[in-house]
Amino acid sequence: MKTVISASQFTKEDLVRLLEASRKIEEALKSRRQLPLLDEYVLATLFFEPSTRTRLSFESAMHRLGGRVITTVGVQFSSLAKGESLFDTMKMVESYADIVAIRHPLEGASHIAAKTVSIPVINAGDGAGEHPTQALLDLYTINKHKDLSRYIRLAFIGDIRNGRTIHSLLQLMAHFPSELIFISPAELSLPDKYKEMLKQSRIPFQETENIEALLDSDVAYVTRIQEERFTDRSEYEKFKDYYSVDRELIEKSRRGTIVMHPLPRLTEVSTDLDNHPSAVYFEQATNGLYTRMALLLELLNVPLQI
Amino acid sequence: MKTVISASQFTKEDLVRLLEASRKIEEALKSRRQLPLLDEYVLATLFFEPSTRTRLSFESAMHRLGGRVITTVGVQFSSLAKGESLFDTMKMVESYADIVAIRHPLEGASHIAAKTVSIPVINAGDGAGEHPTQALLDLYTINKHKDLSRYIRLAFIGDIRNGRTIHSLLQLMAHFPSELIFISPAELSLPDKYKEMLKQSRIPFQETENIEALLDSDVAYVTRIQEERFTDRSEYEKFKDYYSVDRELIEKSRRGTIVMHPLPRLTEVSTDLDNHPSAVYFEQATNGLYTRMALLLELLNVPLQI
Amino acid sequence: MKTVISASQFTKEDLVRLLEASRKIEEALKSRRQLPLLDEYVLATLFFEPSTRTRLSFESAMHRLGGRVITTVGVQFSSLAKGESLFDTMKMVESYADIVAIRHPLEGASHIAAKTVSIPVINAGDGAGEHPTQALLDLYTINKHKDLSRYIRLAFIGDIRNGRTIHSLLQLMAHFPSELIFISPAELSLPDKYKEMLKQSRIPFQETENIEALLDSDVAYVTRIQEERFTDRSEYEKFKDYYSVDRELIEKSRRGTIVMHPLPRLTEVSTDLDNHPSAVYFEQATNGLYTRMALLLELLNVPLQI
Repeated sequence: MKTVISASQFTKEDLVRLLEASRKIEEALKSRRQLPLLDEYVLATLFFEPSTRTRLSFESAMHRLGGRVITTVGVQFSSLAKGESLFDTMKMVESYADIVAIRHPLEGASHIAAKTVSIPVINAGDGAGEHPTQALLDLYTINKHKDLSRYIRLAFIGDIRNGRTIHSLLQLMAHFPSELIFISPAELSLPDKYKEMLKQSRIPFQETENIEALLDSDVAYVTRIQEERFTDRSEYEKFKDYYSVDRELIEKSRRGTIVMHPLPRLTEVSTDLDNHPSAVYFEQATNGLYTRMALLLELLNVPLQI
Repeated sequence: MKTVISASQFTKEDLVRLLEASRKIEEALKSRRQLPLLDEYVLATLFFEPSTRTRLSFESAMHRLGGRVITTVGVQFSSLAKGESLFDTMKMVESYADIVAIRHPLEGASHIAAKTVSIPVINAGDGAGEHPTQALLDLYTINKHKDLSRYIRLAFIGDIRNGRTIHSLLQLMAHFPSELIFISPAELSLPDKYKEMLKQSRIPFQETENIEALLDSDVAYVTRIQEERFTDRSEYEKFKDYYSVDRELIEKSRRGTIVMHPLPRLTEVSTDLDNHPSAVYFEQATNGLYTRMALLLELLNVPLQI
Repeated sequence: MKTVISASQFTKEDLVRLLEASRKIEEALKSRRQLPLLDEYVLATLFFEPSTRTRLSFESAMHRLGGRVITTVGVQFSSLAKGESLFDTMKMVESYADIVAIRHPLEGASHIAAKTVSIPVINAGDGAGEHPTQALLDLYTINKHKDLSRYIRLAFIGDIRNGRTIHSLLQLMAHFPSELIFISPAELSLPDKYKEMLKQSRIPFQETENIEALLDSDVAYVTRIQEERFTDRSEYEKFKDYYSVDRELIEKSRRGTIVMHPLPRLTEVSTDLDNHPSAVYFEQATNGLYTRMALLLELLNVPLQI
């Protein structure tokens, strides 16, 4: 594995291996703060679009492996402000780092970035495209609570049209016995290309506007209405408070539904769920540390010796 | 000690212990550049309001202890821009770091932050509230030049209403034999709640508009008129050049007054004082390194073994 | 050597020594990722004017030497926003770091900075002034492709009036047998003070508006029209697409001309040159890593023991 650009690139064997590595790392970090396996390596976090959560997660993962980090965020991209191409920027970063995590507002940007350089590139989110490392931590979280080797009903709630974390995760779920439920207003429903993909993978799925459909799921994956992806403000206003998953709703669940969210959240998950046992969204962030550490080691070809 | 939120939380024993630890660290750094006691630890500096001086001081302190740093500043807080609550942001940081230093424009923010997470939290300034680590380095600086076990006359000059470094330091002085002089225009005088506190602690104090009152002090603690705390621009303009402490004034001192300033300064301390022996404000910054190193060790329960 | 402020300060012996150290570092990094010679040192990168390329190059150089980095960029300079002087800012940084690389929009700023503090200061670009570390990496690049001990014809193309990398490099070339060709519109020609310097150093040079003059050079050093230095937008528009060095032009060269560029580039070097053997501009960035590592060691008086 040389790059992580799309969730579609992972084979089932890749996923099983990465989940197992993440599990070992989580186990090891119970008694230690650092696994100094990347002592001499430098990670560049190149965030053309800011994202504190994802950036800090990658940086913390690198530090926990003993590595170094160089970083640049948003408006500080003076070269870009001066009109530099992504190609030239990547050629520069290639000289300074051993591996790069890139977030970019345009779909496909990380693919172009990866083709430009010889060092490993990780897509940390490209516009409304994909966010494969989020998908990996989501999968790891699901597997901790619901056994992936058994049949899982997974409901996605919210902005399914624009939610790149959804687009990435459903591609991973295709490797495991599962059924998907997409709950959203019709205007925010799953893009056709992903429906086609699910049909080809023979993953059963249904679409509904009825939030109560999540009560039949094992996992309710709630997402924020992506304000930044709407060109029409009034359309955003129409949807922003469409759903709110709260304690009252979840307590009606017939399958012990757990509630996930890639965060940040606004009102779509009520804070009255925060200390309910079904809420695993804060744990997701921690799982991101383990899975990103596993990915850094994998991409740099460094064995996980603990 | 699990958090550092307010100067009011320090007992005299805490202060004596921290000053002694800071002194040992200063001594050790005369012959070494690093005390690698926090090799496996990660500090998050979370600056919702920018402050180069304080942030770099914490980061340098962490590096000098061999630790790692992840950081995020101001407008880069994309999660916040997306409407995330401080609670959710803190839950995230808790996953990525072992300790966090937070600056926030709202009074009380760091208290809320500390209640949210299980890792130690340090208040690095909350609005017009407090700045307890500044108070600690101020106390350390005073003790280096004037013996704290003896009676000290400390004059505060400038924006006493909004100066959070003043609010924090006067609470520490309450543990030592001292008398306080507040020199400011009436509009910028000490808030009642601090007057009440001083009365209860039986610390004698006086208020005056006469800058010459500092000539009777051992320590003149000058502060900047806090432009960012004024809602009325014309009020700021009225006060901004109210006082200027200069060499001519200080040379009239009858008690060998030293001049402190938390920096940055504008015109309230004249540059003609910079290389006068009374000027200790540049030394304060260096003292901040030692006291913050002592605090990081204390909060992480790592013994100071040199 | 205590500071690196101007290319004019380097003696020929300095240059020969630094090029040799850079060469050893490049050689060593073929089999290793890090030379941990600055384990206990902290570098501050103080970028009053953003520059991703130069900042990341310094930071990567420090990390590859095992050192630590604290950094602050552009608008985050809250102390400056509050009106702090460069003098006060430097006094602060002196407390927190062992060495500082500074970029500032005003010519001469790094000279003032260096006079303020006792730690080594590196000018990482000051307005339209100088950029001596860029000149060093340029010299290293020239020497890798064309032997500096023999006569070199070096053509500068583009914004010769404002191009600080040009101003710095021509001062270094004065130590080696060379002839300089300045190709630019008359309005963007070499400032008189540099012409005077060349005359005193007895370096032959010519000025022309004819781009084809580069065909007689060994090295064509192309630069971007510096939009940010123009006060008149229409003047910038007039010049911005004045020249474009492309494959067709370079293939007419009679001396195996190599093409250099400090980057970022816009249209002044065509992308159709990117994988032509004459294009060494991407390699320049990598050379910057080696030469900056050599400089950090030199300024901190740490021997290069590999």
